[in-house]
Amino acid sequence: MGKIICCGLGPGDPDLMSVRAAREVRRARHVAFFRKKGHPGQARRIVEGMLGENVREYPMEYPVTTEIAFNSREYTRLLDGFYEEWAERLARLARNDDVVVLCEGDPYFYGSFMHLHARLQGRAEIEVIAGIPGMAGCWNSVGRPIALGDDVMTVLMGTLSEDELGRRMRNSDVLVIMKTGRNLEKIRRALASAGRLDEAWLIERGTMPGERVTRLVDAGETDCPYFAIVLVYGQGQRTKAAE
Amino acid sequence: MGKIICCGLGPGDPDLMSVRAAREVRRARHVAFFRKKGHPGQARRIVEGMLGENVREYPMEYPVTTEIAFNSREYTRLLDGFYEEWAERLARLARNDDVVVLCEGDPYFYGSFMHLHARLQGRAEIEVIAGIPGMAGCWNSVGRPIALGDDVMTVLMGTLSEDELGRRMRNSDVLVIMKTGRNLEKIRRALASAGRLDEAWLIERGTMPGERVTRLVDAGETDCPYFAIVLVYGQGQRTKAAE
Repeated sequence: MGKIICCGLGPGDPDLMSVRAAREVRRARHVAFFRKKGHPGQARRIVEGMLGENVREYPMEYPVTTEIAFNSREYTRLLDGFYEEWAERLARLARNDDVVVLCEGDPYFYGSFMHLHARLQGRAEIEVIAGIPGMAGCWNSVGRPIALGDDVMTVLMGTLSEDELGRRMRNSDVLVIMKTGRNLEKIRRALASAGRLDEAWLIERGTMPGERVTRLVDAGETDCPYFAIVLVYGQGQRTKAAE
Repeated sequence: MGKIICCGLGPGDPDLMSVRAAREVRRARHVAFFRKKGHPGQARRIVEGMLGENVREYPMEYPVTTEIAFNSREYTRLLDGFYEEWAERLARLARNDDVVVLCEGDPYFYGSFMHLHARLQGRAEIEVIAGIPGMAGCWNSVGRPIALGDDVMTVLMGTLSEDELGRRMRNSDVLVIMKTGRNLEKIRRALASAGRLDEAWLIERGTMPGERVTRLVDAGETDCPYFAIVLVYGQGQRTKAAE
């Protein structure tokens, strides 16, 4: 009997993988990972050069990514079938041997593996290895403390409405905005309406080759990768003294 | 010329340290770390068994922790002097050799090292190595996804006022509450007023020996370590379809 080991790979630099995840990747015999059709896959790229000679690889190719609306019935139907098929295949493989699933960042933090995690309950033993979340890699790339003292931090998905983004941006010291990509212009408008645009940073490919760190006001309007992250840094708020 | 290398050690389990941090710890000749007087120090405990034979250790002992109010003038004066003294000592050491500073979690995320980081600017070269934040270790210990889909996540310090805690708890899908300790009863009341107490988990010593994971409603009223974390899990909110 094997198990399914979901390895959080961290933000992208293989040196930032945990000691445990690196060990599991190196000794894996079966390795599965998500990727967009025709792309090598970000998770697979992180472990380049680490896999053993006789490893078997299982690229799990999304049937669709941004070609149709993510909130349409057709998208949901296609993705449901895809996750269900892979949950079944991985569970079957795990009857005989361990299967390592590669996941960027920290798997429990907005990770795609969670679609499999839910479907694998009761069908296979699952171990999840924590990783440095992508956002932490990004704020380290800027080289300043993201949050200090009593700062309140809010993590927002760029898929939220412009109104909701703006309202929450006004009401937090530290901001992390994920799933930027084609939402970047909406995020920019929401930050401007909240009076926080001048403070915002855009980090693309954080900790990876081709990393780019810019102030959002200086970033162009095109070509923002889906996994780029927008950050607004805290000032180290302190609960007022009552001396 | 050496530099100051701040190693994020992750949540506590040495196996969850990054490959890079583990390498720097093993080859370090000078190792500094914060601790409370009379205690071994959490960061130092994480690297037990990893240090070289001829390493020189520099325990940086807080002149005061919870004996006097953290927002009093006296506390600020004592801590200022302490950080200034150590910034000077570490900068001097780094003129001749690398100095590794051990830090729990991720240094840039509410880390104590940031008090030195600010004072070391222009006095020494500094390298910071990202780590898995303590909160990520804790949510991994529960073994469920902390955030999914469009969930909004808010990180709060238990030192905030009960009113502010309650207001923000009502207005977020996912909650992470740090700096619990003697603030635990206030946090409990704020969660109750926000109608979220039944959903909350308390994680003590996450990923470390003696780890305890309980629902907050089942946790006793005593003895909560300062670094215990309270979590409320998201449900995977999805932006409503506009089909």
